[in-house]
Order: sequence, then C-alpha cells, then structure tokens
Amino acid sequence: MLRELKRVDEVLKEVLKYVSHRILSIRVRTYDAVGKILAEDVYARVDLPPFDRSAVDGYAVRSDDVVSASPSSPVILYLSKSSRVEPGHAVKVCTGDPLPDGADAVVMKEHVVERGEFIEVLKPVPRWGNVSRRGEDFKVGDLVLSRGSVVDNVSAAAMLATGNLEIEVFRPRIGIVCTGSEIVEPECLRDVKDVEEFSRRGIIVNTTRFLVKEVVESLGAEIEYYGIVPDNVDQISNAVSFLLERNDMVIVTGGTAVGDRDLTYSAILRLEPAYVWRGLAIRPAKPTGVAVVNGKPILMLSGFPVAAYVGFTVLGVPILCHMMGIEYRERTMLRGVLTRRVAKPPSLRAYVRVRACIDRRDGIVKVSPLALTGSGLLSTLIKGNAILEIPEELEGFEEGSQVWIRLVRDLNYCEE
Amino acid sequence: MLRELKRVDEVLKEVLKYVSHRILSIRVRTYDAVGKILAEDVYARVDLPPFDRSAVDGYAVRSDDVVSASPSSPVILYLSKSSRVEPGHAVKVCTGDPLPDGADAVVMKEHVVERGEFIEVLKPVPRWGNVSRRGEDFKVGDLVLSRGSVVDNVSAAAMLATGNLEIEVFRPRIGIVCTGSEIVEPECLRDVKDVEEFSRRGIIVNTTRFLVKEVVESLGAEIEYYGIVPDNVDQISNAVSFLLERNDMVIVTGGTAVGDRDLTYSAILRLEPAYVWRGLAIRPAKPTGVAVVNGKPILMLSGFPVAAYVGFTVLGVPILCHMMGIEYRERTMLRGVLTRRVAKPPSLRAYVRVRACIDRRDGIVKVSPLALTGSGLLSTLIKGNAILEIPEELEGFEEGSQVWIRLVRDLNYCEE
Repeated sequence: MLRELKRVDEVLKEVLKYVSHRILSIRVRTYDAVGKILAEDVYARVDLPPFDRSAVDGYAVRSDDVVSASPSSPVILYLSKSSRVEPGHAVKVCTGDPLPDGADAVVMKEHVVERGEFIEVLKPVPRWGNVSRRGEDFKVGDLVLSRGSVVDNVSAAAMLATGNLEIEVFRPRIGIVCTGSEIVEPECLRDVKDVEEFSRRGIIVNTTRFLVKEVVESLGAEIEYYGIVPDNVDQISNAVSFLLERNDMVIVTGGTAVGDRDLTYSAILRLEPAYVWRGLAIRPAKPTGVAVVNGKPILMLSGFPVAAYVGFTVLGVPILCHMMGIEYRERTMLRGVLTRRVAKPPSLRAYVRVRACIDRRDGIVKVSPLALTGSGLLSTLIKGNAILEIPEELEGFEEGSQVWIRLVRDLNYCEE
Repeated sequence: MLRELKRVDEVLKEVLKYVSHRILSIRVRTYDAVGKILAEDVYARVDLPPFDRSAVDGYAVRSDDVVSASPSSPVILYLSKSSRVEPGHAVKVCTGDPLPDGADAVVMKEHVVERGEFIEVLKPVPRWGNVSRRGEDFKVGDLVLSRGSVVDNVSAAAMLATGNLEIEVFRPRIGIVCTGSEIVEPECLRDVKDVEEFSRRGIIVNTTRFLVKEVVESLGAEIEYYGIVPDNVDQISNAVSFLLERNDMVIVTGGTAVGDRDLTYSAILRLEPAYVWRGLAIRPAKPTGVAVVNGKPILMLSGFPVAAYVGFTVLGVPILCHMMGIEYRERTMLRGVLTRRVAKPPSLRAYVRVRACIDRRDGIVKVSPLALTGSGLLSTLIKGNAILEIPEELEGFEEGSQVWIRLVRDLNYCEE
C-alpha cells in the first residue's frame, strides 16, 4: 500500500546514488547512426567546403581586372582553358567547381558576353564575390555536434562532410516485460470479434508497451521485449532477472497499482534490490516505482498507457541520461494562455494533458486542458498534444493565465 | 539557362495538372504502421474502456448504500465473493478490474476498514465515483485518427485498443539518383585521409542524399537509392527511366545549376516529359525543376544539400500529398521576434535559415537570422532550427518585427 508518496526530485536524487551501471558507447559508421545519441563531441576534421568554390555558374577572374567593368565599357578577358587564372584571363566555372588558382572572384554568367576566345565582363565583382570560401561552413576544429545530441540525417551529413566517417554513439539496451493476466497482445488478435470476445472476459489489448516504446525509441535505445507474463511472482521475478542480465535497464509494466494482486513489487523484492521505492507524488502515474539491482535500474510502471508514458518520462528518461553521463534536458517548453481554469489536489505534481493550438491572427498559443484525466485515457494523448505541469505547491491555474507547456506532438493552428 | 523564374505556386498549379499517377495504399497490421501516413479515417470499432472499470483499488458498492457513511458513523457492508454486488454488499476490486454487476461506484481502499467478513465504509462515494465508464475514452464510431495523419506508437495504441487491428496506409515509393562526377559516397571512404585526398581532386562527400532522405522518410516513404551516376546524359536518363518504372516519384540531385555541364535537364528531355519546368523564384534552390513522365513526377534538385532540402520541401512534399489525395499541411509556424534586420532581393521568395530560441523569462521566441546564406552550407541547418519565409512581395523584415517561423528542429531556451 502506498502509505507515503515522495516527490519525483527526491526519488531521483536517491535512486541515482545506487545506479552505478553505465551505458556503453559503440563506434559506428556515421550514416548508420541516425536516431542514436552522440557519445562524444564531434569536431570538423577537414574544412567544409574543402576548397574555395564557385557559388554560381560563371567565369573565375581576378577581381582587380574587372574593377572598371560596365555595360558601356566592358572589360575584355582572354578565355583560358588553363587551370590557373593569369592576369587578363578568365576560366569558365560551374556552381560548385573549385576556384582555379589565381582567381579571387567569379563573375556570374548573366554579366558576361562570350565572344569566341574572349569574354566581355559587364559588371565588376568584389574580391571573393560569388565564391564559397574554404571552411566557411565548418573550419577544422569547429564543433559540429555535441555529445548528448540525437543524430539525424542532417547532422549525419554534416559530420560526414567534415571527415567524421565514424562516430561514437550510445547503445542503451532496455528490457521490457508486461505483467497481467488481464491483457492480451494485439499480435494474438485476428479481428475486432476477438477484441470483443476478450473484452467480455475483462481482458484488454496491451497498448502500454507502445507508449513506452515511443519514449524509449526517442532515446535511440534498443528494446528487448519479453512479452506478457501472468500474475505470478516467480514468473515476473524470473523475467526481470533474465532481462536485467542482458540490458541496461528493465521496465515492468502493470501490477504497480497497489492491490492484493500486485505481484510486481514482491517479485522485485526477491531480487534483493539495493534501493526500492514506489509511490510518486504525481498525477497520473502515482504508483510508479523504481528499484536498483546490481547497479542497474528497474522501473515499475503502471499498466495504464498514459500513466506508463508519464512515469517513464519523469523517472526513466533522467535515469537513462545519468547512465550515459549526459545532461538531462527536458523538452523545451512553450508559453501559452490557458482557455479555462485547471485545478489539482494539493501536494501532488500534476501532468495535465492539454490541447495547444496557435492562433493564426496573433501567433498566441491557446492552451485548453482536456476534460478527461484518467490515466488509462489514450484519447487525451491523441486529442491533446502537450503536457501542462502543475508543481506541487500550486493548486492550479486560473483561466487566462500564462502557462508553460511541453509539446509531445505537433502544434496546429486553432480552428477559427 | 534560367531565362525565367516562376513562382512556386504557379509551378505547382501547372505540374499537378499532369501528375495523374496515384500512390497506392496497403493494408497492414496496425503495430507495423508506425511512421506511415494513414490512408483512411479510423473509427473506434469497440468502446474503450470496453467495460466500466475501477479506477482505483477499493471496494465496489452501490452508491446509495454509503450515502450516510462517515468516520464517526461508518456504513457496514458484507464483503461478498460473488461477481455481483447486492444491496448491502461490497466486492473487493483492483485498479482496472471490470466493475461487478450491481455496483455503481468504488470506495477507495483508504476510506475503508476491513473487519473479516465485513467492511466499514468511512466516506460516501457519488454514483460512478472512481469508475472509468465504458466508452469514456472512445465510443464505437468515434474518430480515432484521420486520413493523412502520420501514425506513431501512441496513435497505433489507440487504434489497436479500439479494435482496429489492421489499417490502410499509404506506401509511397521514391527513387533517388545522385548525379555528378565530383561527388563520392561516404561508404567509399575509409577515413579522414580519404576525404582529404578526394578534396584535393575537387571531389566532395555526397551528403545531399541524406538531406533528401530526412524529408522523404518523414512522409513514410520507402526509398530506392540508385547511387551516383557520372555526368553522362545516357546514364542519367537510363537511371531515371529505371527508377520511374518502379517508383511513384523520382528525385535527381545535382546537375540542375545551369552550366554547360548540366546534363540532368537534357537527360530528362529525352524521356519526352508531358511537362517540364526549371527555375523557381526562391532562394535557395532557384534551379529546382520538375518534369512529368507517364503521369509521374521527376524532381530535379540541386546538388547542394540545403538547396535540395528546401527544393524538395516546397515542391516535392505538396506533389506527394496530391498523389495521396491528402490535404497538404505545411508544418505549423510559430510567432517570434526578429533580433536583427533581414533583407532579400525583390521578387524572390526567400527561405532564411534562422536560430530560434525561447526566452525563459517571458516565453517570447527570439529569431536570429544566420549570417551565412549559401545553399551548400550545412552548418545553417545544424546551428539553425527554423526557416523564416519571406514572400516575393516583401524586401525583408526590420529588427524587432513579429515574424512567423517554421521549426525544423527542436526549440531550445535562449542562453542568458
């Protein structure tokens, strides 16, 4: 029974003292690293661009040669085939071509008339005009991407182009086991009739694992999914043990609501944890718990999808960051105006699901709390797109208040 | 040569008249659909929750029985093992359990004292108190997710739980071929020495394909990557033909800057396109082009990564949406304040890369244009996180202006 609830910060502070296990990093080809978290600061190893290059189609020249050029009195240059631009000469170049030696600018095609072996330049060009200078994008030694960033295709491209063909990324491995004789895997259902049939027996589709997956995958983690184990202390304990050996963290969903049939807690006690706590002063996800065995964390999440999602976000994500030795960065928040009052019980931290939209006219973000607050309510995460956190000390916010929200899905325009 | 530039809207309007090919949708298991675009509106086929269920650990009761309950004068109920709650009886339930017949509320464990075969209820509970009602999350027939949405784990969970075990999703297939004798695949490079060696010969790493991939994948598309073909009309034309047969759209990168060596345009003319245009009044990505062969679009993108990214975003994404028959939704914009003046040439639409951050103190988004504007400059997409679009008609924006920006990466807090 949850006799006492602790603040998230307090539990985090306690548990991190016991989590001694560290998440390994591995060296991978950079183009295979998309989605992973970078385990090192990556610096440019070559200049980008690697050479001065033409930014346009045109003619490489010496800028001094064309200072006086104008349509009425064009400068005439010899069109050379050489790879070097001598005084009085020009060399034809395409966008992206290395700038020939001797040249220090490119005259755009549009400002030139070609006359056989000569060209007429109609306009002057400043020194380095229409030239992308070597290293102007990244110079050797410039920071390209910092440790702790998630690699995407764009940053992978920048690392590759700066000579970083391999990079060091974290490889978190997370074991997940779902408990409960009252859930069934969607893989075991053929059609809606099966869903109805199971419902009649009080058995529901296991959706919680997908909510956990959504957050876990955003951290570039690999998931070992054990499946569902029935409500049996031995089986739960064995599954957790098995997963713990092979992974950096284990997540158990279900069985955390404290009833007589809650066996997850008992199963974890069997593993003689160095630390164990259950009961957070938050809503939803109050029965979230955490234990530490062999320096590795075990998270006990609710069987209810939304509570599992919140529980992992507030406890699991910071613990994983700690194990990678990277700074825990909360998703950035946006400021908006509350469209109606929202209240919560005292001394709990509430995570209220809200629908935020942006007003096309004034650019102001409008924040509407969703009426439903149940921890099982998936619709609040589909209809909603953000979380409004109300700290322990406050009772809520009045209509019209300026509040910070954390986006979990795309922001849309408000319907007029 | 780009004699004339057309507005993006105009080219789009023209090209869509010729794009008759439609992207197929396929039926997949819902848990395999993450990342795909939904091709149908999905409605709840069963109620969620599928039955009235207890939201807490406690005792299912008839609310009328406990109206007068108080700590000083508790109501005593018989603790029944039956699956039905008779008047004067209570049945123990855990969170998530179906509500037993006869009951219409659950008294929380904390408000009950168990005394052998009886319980003392210390507090009344309203009708349906602590009960999640059947269908309160989704009722049969409720819209769960609409056609055109991208499926994520959260929406997949909601569709599964509402009896939608299979859903119809689009399967766009996109062929990509990169042209240019001056680029080399990162797969062909062993280490930074190879990068340096190629650079000395004017050959750079092919990063453009990764930028295109980033946008294409966000549309749930499958990519058939052909690789690099050298600057040869026959080879480019053959590669495009091959890919066009097997895919819904073909993207050619490189060779669009209009120089004597630009062979992509010639290669595409050989395929006798029903429509072809090159030259958009935008910056960057001016030399972006599009053709239609056999009702399928061929996109000619710049070989420069940022220009390819912008070109595909403004032209490729709306065309793909058209081929799926879904509304083209631009990424939602945010409103911010410009920290310095930004200008552009007249009659072009400019996509200025900016760094946006949110001020912790007042929640205002600060928008700083990046000094560098080159279309090859990857750093502007790494250091920047948003795009500021300046319409054709304007010359720019003054410092302090309110502007709309489109986020392409996460927003961070401003450094103090």
